[in-house]
Amino acid sequence: MDKGGRNLRHLETILGYKFKDKNLLKLALTHRSLGQHPANNNERMEFLGDAVLQLTVSTYLYEKFPKLPEGELAKTRSLLVRESTLAELARELRLNEYLLVGKGEQRSHAQDRDSLLCDVLEAIYGAIYLDGGFELAQKVILNHLPEWDHKQVAIIDAKSTLQEHFQQTAKKPPVYELIDERGPDHDKLFVVEVSFDNEVLGRGTGPTKKEAEQEAARQALSIVGL
Amino acid sequence: MDKGGRNLRHLETILGYKFKDKNLLKLALTHRSLGQHPANNNERMEFLGDAVLQLTVSTYLYEKFPKLPEGELAKTRSLLVRESTLAELARELRLNEYLLVGKGEQRSHAQDRDSLLCDVLEAIYGAIYLDGGFELAQKVILNHLPEWDHKQVAIIDAKSTLQEHFQQTAKKPPVYELIDERGPDHDKLFVVEVSFDNEVLGRGTGPTKKEAEQEAARQALSIVGL
Repeated sequence: MDKGGRNLRHLETILGYKFKDKNLLKLALTHRSLGQHPANNNERMEFLGDAVLQLTVSTYLYEKFPKLPEGELAKTRSLLVRESTLAELARELRLNEYLLVGKGEQRSHAQDRDSLLCDVLEAIYGAIYLDGGFELAQKVILNHLPEWDHKQVAIIDAKSTLQEHFQQTAKKPPVYELIDERGPDHDKLFVVEVSFDNEVLGRGTGPTKKEAEQEAARQALSIVGL
Repeated sequence: MDKGGRNLRHLETILGYKFKDKNLLKLALTHRSLGQHPANNNERMEFLGDAVLQLTVSTYLYEKFPKLPEGELAKTRSLLVRESTLAELARELRLNEYLLVGKGEQRSHAQDRDSLLCDVLEAIYGAIYLDGGFELAQKVILNHLPEWDHKQVAIIDAKSTLQEHFQQTAKKPPVYELIDERGPDHDKLFVVEVSFDNEVLGRGTGPTKKEAEQEAARQALSIVGL
């Protein structure tokens, strides 16, 4: 067995999935710099894997938060599958060590770029889906999820996360202010701003004050780098 | 059995899917005007169904066009699942007759609006996915696909479709013009415009002249209403 072969077996262990067709895994790892033709690189698989990931995360959030409105589900999903989060997961899985890129890309350390790592992770999910079907791919992805779980809960309850952050770092909480309240009683819209030390960190709108606050806190989280 | 019950059985026949849990189908048909709470209307299911549809169409295109680059797959998918196409399919399935909306919405004929019809179709796909899993939902969606098939082939080979259109309606073909050619030999980018009777109908870019022409033709198709 050649080195490549051993490597792929090791990667399968890390991923928690054994491919029936190893060529699918190889293709998922192959960057366009090594195969210009659409059939010879991982870009088509990434297209597929992105959709597999979206459905997996959608299902997960749908089941985990039975009362969360559609808009909140969509926002949470987009935060969970954003490039930086996926690249982080790809690094934990050490995909950068397995990625197959051209010499020019190797010299410029392309395999460490967020966008490339995110693409290869999605391509791998696409390859698992092609190899084993949706339910197996879903299982593998959910096994990679624990890391996300904490982050996603932090996002869902952004207010508590922000509160803890400022209590720990500055020993005082952020301030929420209702700055507008529109519409008739049965169809209200609240606008809330959150600030710290008189600096506005986020603004949110929602059908209740609580939801507007969460939305404002969510904006603030990305401002403070959480 | 009440009228609603008979109606739902009839709808199941039209859809080609029999629900184990009829409540899922009822919820998929329920517009927000009849249930404000996220758990009492079809918006969350629509969120799920949209992802089911995306993965189904992605897989379909991936398998049907093994050489199509990722960018073309994505464009074709977005054209296939756009609101007007889905609303058209929803009308063929006569979903407007089954949609459950509030009295105000009934008076304003909300159930005939494209956006509502598209939402309810996606919600139904979400409900089938919840009831029977991804593979069954995929089968049902693909059975609804023949109508799309023609359209999608028309989009993939937009040049031929546009050619036929003008031959039939005006007895002469559209004109393609290469207006720019950039980059080194191994990484060219072509820019092409398509026009008819000196009116520019579309502009496309691509790594080959042919791909740039297809892209321009695709733009022109929507201009001429195809």
